[in-house]
Amino acid sequence: MKKADTGAPLGVAVVGAGYWGPNLVRNFQASASFRLLWLCDLDVARAQRVLGGYSTVEATADYAHILADDRVDAVAIATPAATHRDLALAALEAGKHVLVEKPLAATYADGRLLVEEAARRGLTLMCDHTYCYTPAVTKLRELIHDGVLGDVHFIDSVRINLGLVQRDIDVLWDLAPHDLSILDSILPEGVEPEAVAAHGADPIGAGRCCVAYLTLRLTGGAIAHIHVNWLSPTKVRSTMVGGSKRTVVWDDLNPAQRVAVFDRGVDLAAPEELADQARQQMLISYRSGDMTAPALTEREALSAVVEEYAAAIHARRPALTDGRAGLRVLDVLEAASRSLEFHGAVVGLRGAR
Amino acid sequence: MKKADTGAPLGVAVVGAGYWGPNLVRNFQASASFRLLWLCDLDVARAQRVLGGYSTVEATADYAHILADDRVDAVAIATPAATHRDLALAALEAGKHVLVEKPLAATYADGRLLVEEAARRGLTLMCDHTYCYTPAVTKLRELIHDGVLGDVHFIDSVRINLGLVQRDIDVLWDLAPHDLSILDSILPEGVEPEAVAAHGADPIGAGRCCVAYLTLRLTGGAIAHIHVNWLSPTKVRSTMVGGSKRTVVWDDLNPAQRVAVFDRGVDLAAPEELADQARQQMLISYRSGDMTAPALTEREALSAVVEEYAAAIHARRPALTDGRAGLRVLDVLEAASRSLEFHGAVVGLRGAR
Amino acid sequence: MKKADTGAPLGVAVVGAGYWGPNLVRNFQASASFRLLWLCDLDVARAQRVLGGYSTVEATADYAHILADDRVDAVAIATPAATHRDLALAALEAGKHVLVEKPLAATYADGRLLVEEAARRGLTLMCDHTYCYTPAVTKLRELIHDGVLGDVHFIDSVRINLGLVQRDIDVLWDLAPHDLSILDSILPEGVEPEAVAAHGADPIGAGRCCVAYLTLRLTGGAIAHIHVNWLSPTKVRSTMVGGSKRTVVWDDLNPAQRVAVFDRGVDLAAPEELADQARQQMLISYRSGDMTAPALTEREALSAVVEEYAAAIHARRPALTDGRAGLRVLDVLEAASRSLEFHGAVVGLRGAR
Amino acid sequence: MKKADTGAPLGVAVVGAGYWGPNLVRNFQASASFRLLWLCDLDVARAQRVLGGYSTVEATADYAHILADDRVDAVAIATPAATHRDLALAALEAGKHVLVEKPLAATYADGRLLVEEAARRGLTLMCDHTYCYTPAVTKLRELIHDGVLGDVHFIDSVRINLGLVQRDIDVLWDLAPHDLSILDSILPEGVEPEAVAAHGADPIGAGRCCVAYLTLRLTGGAIAHIHVNWLSPTKVRSTMVGGSKRTVVWDDLNPAQRVAVFDRGVDLAAPEELADQARQQMLISYRSGDMTAPALTEREALSAVVEEYAAAIHARRPALTDGRAGLRVLDVLEAASRSLEFHGAVVGLRGAR
Repeated sequence: MKKADTGAPLGVAVVGAGYWGPNLVRNFQASASFRLLWLCDLDVARAQRVLGGYSTVEATADYAHILADDRVDAVAIATPAATHRDLALAALEAGKHVLVEKPLAATYADGRLLVEEAARRGLTLMCDHTYCYTPAVTKLRELIHDGVLGDVHFIDSVRINLGLVQRDIDVLWDLAPHDLSILDSILPEGVEPEAVAAHGADPIGAGRCCVAYLTLRLTGGAIAHIHVNWLSPTKVRSTMVGGSKRTVVWDDLNPAQRVAVFDRGVDLAAPEELADQARQQMLISYRSGDMTAPALTEREALSAVVEEYAAAIHARRPALTDGRAGLRVLDVLEAASRSLEFHGAVVGLRGAR
Repeated sequence: MKKADTGAPLGVAVVGAGYWGPNLVRNFQASASFRLLWLCDLDVARAQRVLGGYSTVEATADYAHILADDRVDAVAIATPAATHRDLALAALEAGKHVLVEKPLAATYADGRLLVEEAARRGLTLMCDHTYCYTPAVTKLRELIHDGVLGDVHFIDSVRINLGLVQRDIDVLWDLAPHDLSILDSILPEGVEPEAVAAHGADPIGAGRCCVAYLTLRLTGGAIAHIHVNWLSPTKVRSTMVGGSKRTVVWDDLNPAQRVAVFDRGVDLAAPEELADQARQQMLISYRSGDMTAPALTEREALSAVVEEYAAAIHARRPALTDGRAGLRVLDVLEAASRSLEFHGAVVGLRGAR
Repeated sequence: MKKADTGAPLGVAVVGAGYWGPNLVRNFQASASFRLLWLCDLDVARAQRVLGGYSTVEATADYAHILADDRVDAVAIATPAATHRDLALAALEAGKHVLVEKPLAATYADGRLLVEEAARRGLTLMCDHTYCYTPAVTKLRELIHDGVLGDVHFIDSVRINLGLVQRDIDVLWDLAPHDLSILDSILPEGVEPEAVAAHGADPIGAGRCCVAYLTLRLTGGAIAHIHVNWLSPTKVRSTMVGGSKRTVVWDDLNPAQRVAVFDRGVDLAAPEELADQARQQMLISYRSGDMTAPALTEREALSAVVEEYAAAIHARRPALTDGRAGLRVLDVLEAASRSLEFHGAVVGLRGAR
Repeated sequence: MKKADTGAPLGVAVVGAGYWGPNLVRNFQASASFRLLWLCDLDVARAQRVLGGYSTVEATADYAHILADDRVDAVAIATPAATHRDLALAALEAGKHVLVEKPLAATYADGRLLVEEAARRGLTLMCDHTYCYTPAVTKLRELIHDGVLGDVHFIDSVRINLGLVQRDIDVLWDLAPHDLSILDSILPEGVEPEAVAAHGADPIGAGRCCVAYLTLRLTGGAIAHIHVNWLSPTKVRSTMVGGSKRTVVWDDLNPAQRVAVFDRGVDLAAPEELADQARQQMLISYRSGDMTAPALTEREALSAVVEEYAAAIHARRPALTDGRAGLRVLDVLEAASRSLEFHGAVVGLRGAR
């Protein structure tokens, strides 16, 4: 009998001791649902430094060792995207559940292969779209799904910062997965991206795009726009979702007021007997209502990721951000890259939703 | 002998008593360079209301009357864009100098006709690109022209607000002229927009675009992006200009700190002997310097517009924002409209600069 | 029959063409309730400059001339505080209604004399406590009077700026009248200042206090505190009113969110059978509710002052900020000055309310 | 030979597993200067929970056990203030160095006893005034000591939040130690608090002061003011230090711009031949210069506390925030409490500096 069925903590190994790995280590250690057994990194000294001088967790450079360890039920992969396919595939083949850092894989094809393999084996494949588990995005999802916002009219997301220029990927693949996974997680049933156009620039000659703008056409005529930038000296992480009834602004760098719901906007009455355009113009009106900043409980999103991972494994159900969600994000990223190549041409999406 | 040559105040008439006209009235009255004689509006009662019960300025509905008045040296036109061509042309033909509200005209062809007519007659044709006269934009221009910013790498401008949905024009023609005229006024010699792509949406069914994104390719690979939006419940008016040496952020809604100059960014060393890509990647470095908010003198921009109008007339020189500047803005607006029609296709510019 | 009874515009004269006079001129001109006849200043050229070159209003240096003018029903005095007594008294004796700039007079005794004289003659004596007419303070008053805030627990007001160091008065008399008049206007029936302590400093050697802190003890144990400062390089104008049910923060420099109502705080259950202190400590709980920023209509406060002045004259009722309100403010100011002299000693108030 | 002389890591025990203890645990573990051996708490289960399921550090409820452990060179005490005296004294008597949470002790007398005992035994007694080790306060100290600010004119500190109403102490003893220790750490040689007045209120009936205002008279006529408040629904942590040359604003909740140096203010020329007051008034002038936000390196202050503790032990020198600094803070706290009792009376300080 697997531990997944008993309620005993799941044995877990973290793979990758770089930027994100230490956060996974900390959160798995703090969770009663898991027992962290290994931290694996090709550079075992780095893994040891992450664990520090007081830990009982073991460091290793040998991934095969982990896959062979029967106590390990699940792995969490936080390595460069190019390695996701092979590492995740090996883990699935060894019967382990897999949580993988965003993006799910380096290509849509690789991502689909993982999704299919996990499905075939009945294993959990989850994408660590951390932002989707923040109290702010949870509230956003709720406001949209409960109809508080009405129909989604536009989404505008800005994620800019003096970030580390990555060696292997451009700013689109580095930062936009956050916005795209959030978008994927909050859009209501029946509304999804249909096409994307992307514009970018590499003004510093870094050899890859450092500033990029994505425009997504959504089902029903709504528009979403994402601005990602590695060169901005000021940090902005803000998303506005405009709805037919209300508009919400999420400013992630304003802890005192992360989410603000505005009950104001433009209304357009459209009676049946609408005669002509001049008449229509008369029917525009403006609501000037209150703004409400709902109380949010502060909580580290990654601890919710970890608990959702455990819950999905135990319940044998797809995680909120399962492999398919990761695949939908890859779909947009690949189309956006193609659009960049073709100077902003509109590229249709596969519609994996 | 014309008053323009004597130093006596120039006789001026304001045409249009709508949204902007009252501001022109107030600023012409406060200027020693002008003597305001008339306020003209088809709705003469509206003109009288604007003047109030204590003014010695005369209201009229008869434009011909103004053009026939020899005391009138100059007019200032603040009527809907569609009327600019005829009103300005008539004034030029009557030998009057012309200040015209943005945009210069409803079409590039109309604008060119005005520019040519003014040139032929040796009259001043000036575009009221008010923002170009703010202390903030003046400082921006200075920082760029003095080389403090280095080469311009990217420009990102956001102008969003719960604005009045206009009847005759879309959000692009309503708001983007501000950003485009600022861009035109700050770009250094030799750097200009070469092509534009625009994406927009009308999610409320207003019959015209209420949200729009413009991407401009600039000479030398830099990128400029403009976000205009009538549906945002929060007001944002912010422009970032990223340079090779410094980056400046102009937040027009933060009077305590409108302009901030950041001495931080990404540097890329590129030695001659650069061997391979891996090597190049090693040469990226980050500057983490101070931010300085220069002291700006608060001044109403429109009073500077009015004084520049007088100065240009007296000196028989082009105004800072002359007809040609207005024409360059129209060039981008028309191209952007065409791009919108063709779903974001990149449209080249005439390059009127 | 007086115009006050007919509905015809009241003839009004503004006295003082300094800092505030021009604002009164503009607002009286914009009001249908008044006909502005005179602007009076000892420096008649200054008065003419304020009126500008296009006005039909007359400038004069002769106050007696105005008092003798039968068309003048009311005066508005915007001169230094030391002159208020004589100017206002003369106007009352000439049968004119009086609106006077804050503070009502230079001393409590002078103020009382004006209040009594106005009462004796049945004339309106109103104090231009402009802030009390802002949409924000109106909302504050409403929130308190409607019980939304519950009992008032504490009030904290900060009004600091790199202000003009005044020649005749200290920072207390320059800035605190604003906060004290606001306090006077929002406190509920039965709650009033009982005593005041003030601390101050003149670190630049200006010969008068440039930084001051006032602490007021209110009926029932609540506390109010006011910080005024001429030396701060940043401008802050913010007032927090803590209540038993909710707390409101008014930030006058944040036009997008001037008033914010917080539904969070500390609750203390106090059952009858409360046994001991340890027990009491267990009953502290915390509410963590939403914040709401109510929609406020933007409006110039001084136009509401002007309309209230007309309404009070016509209805022969005390204005919202009548002479007695001005007197209560003087009461605190004099007590605070005495406290400053005695190094922060607590000084009781007359309780003129 | 003591480890203090060899460079080997110092053996350390943390006492108290409540609010602050876990932070000490984390920082001692991350430091190469220490080897964390014990976490002690009367509630040993709580200590174990803090250590988590992966730690090799031992938990104990037996303080005597720690004092008897020869491997332990130093302790860090993070227990309620009332216990500081006995715990610290016992440690000193056992020959251990002591780092103690603020405030140093519950009374000035207790604090002095500890200072004297440590001096007698040649042991390090350090107070964990964490804020003094932040990059912001370090910069503040530097700006003052390097003369960039000129003479200190005024200090205004606000520390308000919906905080936990403490059971054993009032808001003064809970929050003001932060501001007082910062003050102590940044004031230049020869400038110190001479007297204090305090006003407070307990509007919720908590049995102790929940809102308090302290005014300190400093050597030479400068003023310092501290506002602490448990009832504010918004969090403010801001300190302004006004100087004769420049003024600095430290806003701890604005990570993008924690410290801002304003080169503007009021100047007062005071020539020898200054004849009369009227003349003096003419010599006030205003500087309107730039604002600069210096780049600060983000660093956890507590890690610097830990390293300073090690450095002071090794070098046998007083720590930056040694016992005497803690004593000076207690001096003000006791005087402020006395002032509160006597309704704001000014209370002189011992001048322990």
